[in-house]
Amino acid sequence: MTEDLPHPALLPSGFTDLLPPDAEFEARLTETLTASFGAHGYQRVKPPLVEFESTLFAGSGAAVADQTYRFMDPESQRMMGLRADTTPQIARIATTRLAAAPRPLRLAYAGQCLLVRGSQRAPERQVAQAGIELIGPDRPEADAETVAVAAAALAAAGIGAISIDLTMPPLIPALLGDATNHAALTRALDRKDAAGIAAHGGTLAPTLLALLNAAGTADSALAALEKIVLPSAIRPMADRLAATVAAIRHLAPTLRLTIDPVEFRGYRYHTGIAVTIFAPGRQAELGRGGRYLCDNGESATGITLYPDTILRSAPRPALRPRLYLPAGTPPDAAAAARAEGYATIAGLTEADTEADTEAEALRLGCTHLWRGDRATPIEGH
Amino acid sequence: MTEDLPHPALLPSGFTDLLPPDAEFEARLTETLTASFGAHGYQRVKPPLVEFESTLFAGSGAAVADQTYRFMDPESQRMMGLRADTTPQIARIATTRLAAAPRPLRLAYAGQCLLVRGSQRAPERQVAQAGIELIGPDRPEADAETVAVAAAALAAAGIGAISIDLTMPPLIPALLGDATNHAALTRALDRKDAAGIAAHGGTLAPTLLALLNAAGTADSALAALEKIVLPSAIRPMADRLAATVAAIRHLAPTLRLTIDPVEFRGYRYHTGIAVTIFAPGRQAELGRGGRYLCDNGESATGITLYPDTILRSAPRPALRPRLYLPAGTPPDAAAAARAEGYATIAGLTEADTEADTEAEALRLGCTHLWRGDRATPIEGH
Repeated sequence: MTEDLPHPALLPSGFTDLLPPDAEFEARLTETLTASFGAHGYQRVKPPLVEFESTLFAGSGAAVADQTYRFMDPESQRMMGLRADTTPQIARIATTRLAAAPRPLRLAYAGQCLLVRGSQRAPERQVAQAGIELIGPDRPEADAETVAVAAAALAAAGIGAISIDLTMPPLIPALLGDATNHAALTRALDRKDAAGIAAHGGTLAPTLLALLNAAGTADSALAALEKIVLPSAIRPMADRLAATVAAIRHLAPTLRLTIDPVEFRGYRYHTGIAVTIFAPGRQAELGRGGRYLCDNGESATGITLYPDTILRSAPRPALRPRLYLPAGTPPDAAAAARAEGYATIAGLTEADTEADTEAEALRLGCTHLWRGDRATPIEGH
Repeated sequence: MTEDLPHPALLPSGFTDLLPPDAEFEARLTETLTASFGAHGYQRVKPPLVEFESTLFAGSGAAVADQTYRFMDPESQRMMGLRADTTPQIARIATTRLAAAPRPLRLAYAGQCLLVRGSQRAPERQVAQAGIELIGPDRPEADAETVAVAAAALAAAGIGAISIDLTMPPLIPALLGDATNHAALTRALDRKDAAGIAAHGGTLAPTLLALLNAAGTADSALAALEKIVLPSAIRPMADRLAATVAAIRHLAPTLRLTIDPVEFRGYRYHTGIAVTIFAPGRQAELGRGGRYLCDNGESATGITLYPDTILRSAPRPALRPRLYLPAGTPPDAAAAARAEGYATIAGLTEADTEADTEAEALRLGCTHLWRGDRATPIEGH
C-alpha cells in the first residue's frame, strides 16, 4: 500500500503503526500460533492489560517491575500497572481462580505488553506475546512438552530449522554458593571469560572451566557434563538437563538443541530449565521460557513466543485476491464472490465507461474485475 | 472449567480475567469479525496502544479525552495516553501515513481499549473493539456500506435479527441555531420530553414535536419526515437519511432499520448519519458508528463493534474434542489426531492400569481416550 513517510515525531519512540498488509500477517500469525497451542490441549485465558501492582509484581512478576508503567487507579486509589509480561498473570490465574482446576493445567494466551524502556537492540516498547504455561508437575516431560509445542506452533507458521538453547540458570549460583571473589567470578562467568574464571575461581576454577567448555550441541554438552565431577547438590541439575533433552528428543527428534551449562541469565526467577528459541541462523530470538514458581510456590513451566519477531522470519500467507465490483453489482453475486475467496471492493459511484471502471479497479489495487457475471483478472495489474 | 470464587479485591473494578472457554470464544469471534471485514475489502491496520496525547486527542479523539489514562513518556518527557477508542487512531493513520493511498480507503482493526471510568450500566474499563472505517467519499452509499458490512460480520458470527438505529446528530443543533431557551429546550429534547419541548420550543415547537413523533421504523419515519416542513438548511439532512436507508436496503434488504430524527447524541463529533446496532430484542448495543471528520477535514464513516457484548449474544462455536494420550503414545499418532480435529492432552507419567488411565483422562476433562491405536469416546463423560 502506498504510504507517505511518517512524520518524525508522530509516535513515541518504540511504538509503531502496522499497516496493510503487515497488520493482517501479524493477526494471522497469532491465530496460527494460538490454534496450534489449542490443538495441543492448551486452553486460552485472557488476563486484563491492567492489574494492581501488588498482583502484577508477585512471584516471577517482580523481574519486570522496573519495565512496568504504573499509575493510580482513580476508583480505588491503589497503584495499577500495565503488564510488561504475561506469564505472571497466567500464574496468578492458575493459583487463584483456577486453583481447583486439575493439574497439569495447560493454559495459553496472546496479547500485547508495554515496556517503559526499549533497548538499542530491541527498541520496541509495545511487544506482542503468544505463549503457553504448563502448571503443576515439575518433570522433564513437562519442560519438554512446552518446547515441543512451541516448535510445533512455529512449524505451523512455516518456520522450521529453529534452534533451541537450553540452560539451567540455578546451577552456577548453587555451585558458587558463598565462594570468595563471588562478584568478580560472577562477572567473569557472565562474560564467558575463561581467564577471569581461572583467576577468580579458586578451587572451583577447574569445574567452572570444564562447564564453560562443555557448551555446545546437546550431544557433545551432555557427554562433557557426564564426565565432570560435580557436587552432589549440583549433579541432579546436570542430570535434569540430560533427562529434558531425552524427553524433547522423544517428542521432536529433529529439533536442533544446544546446551550452555554456565549461562545463568534469568536465575532470579527460573528455578529449573530455561529455554531460548532462535530463528534459523540464530539471528533472532523467537521465544523464551523456562521453569519458575508461582506466587504460592506451585511449580510451572512455559514458553513465550514473540509474534513481532517471528513475523520477520515467517513466510507470508496468500491474501485474498481483490475483486472490484462496479456499482450496481447484485449483492448476491458479491456474496458468492466472497465465498469463493475474493475480497470484494465495491464501487460507490457508477463509471461512465467500462474503461473507466477498469481504471478505477486498478487505482484501488484490485487484481480482478466483475465483468458480465463473473470475476475476470485485470490485465496490466 | 472448575474455578474458585475470585478474591474480591484481586483485580481493579472493571477489569476481568476471561477463563476457558470464554477467552477462546472471544478470540474466535474477533477472528470471524475481522475475516468478514477483510472479505469486504477492509484492510487491517494495527495502531499502538499508546500515543502522544497530542495525536490521540486530535479530531474526533477529543470526545474521549476525559476517559483516557495519561502518563509521561520517560523518554521524550511528553504526555502519552492509552487509547480509549480506536477510530481516532485509524483516522490519524489514514491522513498521515496513508495520505497518498487511493480513496475510498477501507481500513479495519481489532484490539483493546482502556477507560478511566466504568459506568453503572457498563462497568468494564477494558473494552475490545473491532471495526471498519471508510475514508473518503461523503456519500450515502459509503455510510450504507459500513452498516451492511457490520451486519454481514455479525451474521458470520451467528447473530441475525439485529436492529439498526439511524440518527442525524447535527440536525437538532442546526435546527435550534441560537433559539431562545436553548438550554431548556436541549434538555427537553435529550429527554424526549414532549411537554418540555412544547413549553420551551417557541415557534420551533410544532416542527420539533413532529420530528419527535416521527421516530420509529425507517418506513414510517421517512414517510413522516417527508411531510414535515423543514428549513432549507435542514431538509438535506432528512433527505440524507432517506438516501442512506435506500442504499442500505439495496445492500441488505432484510435489515431492521429504525430512525430517531431528534436524537443528537454524538453531535460533537458526528457530522452526518450516526448508527447504533442493537442485538435481537434491543437489550444490548453491539456496535456504534457514524460519519465524522478526520483531523485534516477529510470525511470518513465507520462502525465499531464490541466483541465483549457480542459474545453474550453469539452462539458458541464447537471446540475441539479433548483426546487423552497416555504417556508413550507415538508422536506421529498424536499429530494425526490433532490433524483430525482433536485437542490432544498428553499424559506425562505412565499409569499402572488401563482403568487408571481412563480415570486420569476423565479427571482432565477429556472426552476421548487413545486406546489401542485410535481415539475412542470415554463412557461416563
